[in-house]
Amino acid sequence: MRKIILAVNAGSSSVKVSIFAAEPDQFPVQLAEAQVSGLTSPPAKLKYLRNGEVIVNNRAAEEFSEEGGHKNVTDQNSAFNLILSVFLSDPDLPDLPSRDSISLVCHRIVHGGDYARPQLITDDTLHHLEDLADLAPLHNAPALEIVRWCIDELSPPAKNIACFDSQFHATIPEHIRTYAINPEVARKKGLRKYGFHGISYSFITRAVAEYLGKDRDKVNMIALHLGSGASACAIKAGKSWDTSMGLTPLAGLPGATRSGTLDPSLVFHYTSNVSRLSHLSTSHLHLTRAEAILNLDSGWKALTGTTDFGTITKNRDSNPSMRLAFDLFANRVANYIGSYYVALEGKVDALVFAGGIGERSAELRREIVKLVGCLGFEIDEERNEQIREEGVVVWDVGKEGENEKLKRVLVCRTDEQFEMVRMCMEEEGVW
Amino acid sequence: MRKIILAVNAGSSSVKVSIFAAEPDQFPVQLAEAQVSGLTSPPAKLKYLRNGEVIVNNRAAEEFSEEGGHKNVTDQNSAFNLILSVFLSDPDLPDLPSRDSISLVCHRIVHGGDYARPQLITDDTLHHLEDLADLAPLHNAPALEIVRWCIDELSPPAKNIACFDSQFHATIPEHIRTYAINPEVARKKGLRKYGFHGISYSFITRAVAEYLGKDRDKVNMIALHLGSGASACAIKAGKSWDTSMGLTPLAGLPGATRSGTLDPSLVFHYTSNVSRLSHLSTSHLHLTRAEAILNLDSGWKALTGTTDFGTITKNRDSNPSMRLAFDLFANRVANYIGSYYVALEGKVDALVFAGGIGERSAELRREIVKLVGCLGFEIDEERNEQIREEGVVVWDVGKEGENEKLKRVLVCRTDEQFEMVRMCMEEEGVW
Repeated sequence: MRKIILAVNAGSSSVKVSIFAAEPDQFPVQLAEAQVSGLTSPPAKLKYLRNGEVIVNNRAAEEFSEEGGHKNVTDQNSAFNLILSVFLSDPDLPDLPSRDSISLVCHRIVHGGDYARPQLITDDTLHHLEDLADLAPLHNAPALEIVRWCIDELSPPAKNIACFDSQFHATIPEHIRTYAINPEVARKKGLRKYGFHGISYSFITRAVAEYLGKDRDKVNMIALHLGSGASACAIKAGKSWDTSMGLTPLAGLPGATRSGTLDPSLVFHYTSNVSRLSHLSTSHLHLTRAEAILNLDSGWKALTGTTDFGTITKNRDSNPSMRLAFDLFANRVANYIGSYYVALEGKVDALVFAGGIGERSAELRREIVKLVGCLGFEIDEERNEQIREEGVVVWDVGKEGENEKLKRVLVCRTDEQFEMVRMCMEEEGVW
Repeated sequence: MRKIILAVNAGSSSVKVSIFAAEPDQFPVQLAEAQVSGLTSPPAKLKYLRNGEVIVNNRAAEEFSEEGGHKNVTDQNSAFNLILSVFLSDPDLPDLPSRDSISLVCHRIVHGGDYARPQLITDDTLHHLEDLADLAPLHNAPALEIVRWCIDELSPPAKNIACFDSQFHATIPEHIRTYAINPEVARKKGLRKYGFHGISYSFITRAVAEYLGKDRDKVNMIALHLGSGASACAIKAGKSWDTSMGLTPLAGLPGATRSGTLDPSLVFHYTSNVSRLSHLSTSHLHLTRAEAILNLDSGWKALTGTTDFGTITKNRDSNPSMRLAFDLFANRVANYIGSYYVALEGKVDALVFAGGIGERSAELRREIVKLVGCLGFEIDEERNEQIREEGVVVWDVGKEGENEKLKRVLVCRTDEQFEMVRMCMEEEGVW
């Protein structure tokens, strides 16, 4: 029985939707994908690919929204609507003749609390997800808007399923996920390390195990998802053992606008009244000034003026603040690699780079691998510079050969939408 | 020219004072030391040693204070006064016949901001130190009370010198000490990694270099100062390269009542209005509720009910929350060892345990060394259990022999008072 499945990935300034055709016991096949980006820096832009071919390449979203009768593409919901109407109006996408042909919508939800598996979204689940949004207001709120719309407009027949970025980390041992704070308060308020980027780490684990010809539950790796949000993960026997993000995605590595871990008392010396609500708060979203400063006004944007790590990399020799941001980021990543090498007792099958920056920045890979050279990693300059074609998922950029002690250095082109659909297909009740 | 020097070490619940006799180009010689402890859990207790011999062993401080005419020993200042009168009234301490015989008082000040050397305390320095107390209210305020008293009552003839716990870390490179936040705010408010326990790390560096027969500026080590406050330090070529504490001593490892590093947004989910002033604030001490929670109501006290790590270690097999606290602490320490091994490019002369817990807990040393075994450290069970006599400063608890790849595991009995006097004697204008 063939099903048409949508995978929805709503971020803070973009919405990405992929359509897959799926059959039991087979990998899902992507038919098309579209993305609206730049929601926080208008005009929003649309990109649309069908069967891997670019149909629309970053044209202003409003050109399309006017045709479709939606005037403004200013938020996640209107972006999702636009994408859906682009799919539905494409004569060359015969698998999606109408809304009714969608049988499943998989939603990426960043913070899933204690959920260790994808969840069919019922009224109960939805309430619980709304409560969780308080813990991660910046991250869950945009996705939930789309979930509500899909429940109203696509169900039935479509089922909605939530896939959580935290669920992969449900295996982190108690002594690692616990914070050294009052345990009663922690239990009551759910204050522990959850970890994120888990849909990506799930994809990486499977893809790298396959590449190495190892069973998924026997592979150990240090995985780095480096993008405008960045994290590291120690994967032991195919499962998350530790990760750099924490209660929220703020902890750990710095990102484009995120500070990452810093002295927990710092923000109280940054400015006054930081526990007041930020002017960015809405009725749905309760955000303190501190959280706004550390999530939105920090990171390499604050250090250099740009969120684009490529610009920082290119100009680091002439621009001291870009040099500082580059070196700072590489240092923090190297620290986690050291910690996770120890956590895996040195039994590391591979160091894996993923995420936009991890995939594309040969310079950052070279710098990081140089910093952790003493652990037995070494870059192969030539392979590291090579650009791989679209279909390649995992490739090797490490030295190999003479020195058998060297450990693998890989790049993985992670695909969160694919992984969401794959995970959902494993759930009972989907077929 | 022989000088009598006091070294004053005021903590949050204790005051320790040592008297040294010093001559140029020689190591200072300790004549006596006394400590009042339990200021925050009365009754306060006095311990007094002369030439290493115990004269008073933890007797209630008030017995002595009544003799001396000071009725209550409830704060750092009255504790210091009591100790001074015990010294002055001891007929067997002929080097200190009167207050006038004190030529130098070295004060341990936790937060020294940008100071990279000890400072003679003038009116200007004192004002600056008072400003710094805002950055580390819990840590600088008690010491400053005693500084003020000494200026009024002992000077002249005594000079007062401030030794900073942060000064050893002035060598941390910019990309490591910088936080990924707005650099203008950071510059204006002095928000960066400072690091602490530096007087101890300075002692450890010198003592371990000597033990290993290496030049101090050629020795690399990972040093752990583990006590009710705990930190780790990567020492490269004799200088601090990175350390776990940050803007304040709150960052990094958990401590007896301190959370250590956690998601910077956590405290905003812990309770409301955390940027309000805590009820512990005074006119001298501005402390937010958040800082009070994370510095005073967290750590292993919160997890287990006791501040005594020995109790936790002893009961960890029968008590699950003590097991959790023990494993959590060992895990966080192992993470830093991994990071700093990488920071030192694997060129590590020794892993060094110091501080009350580092010195005394053979179990914790065994556990930590086991966790980082893949880096080439291994404990020698027998040596690790052996208790060393008072005069021994550095000893080896690691395996050696057959396997040449093994790295040294040492214990160092650090002496902050000695180190303060040694550092001050190197300053110009002291002789």
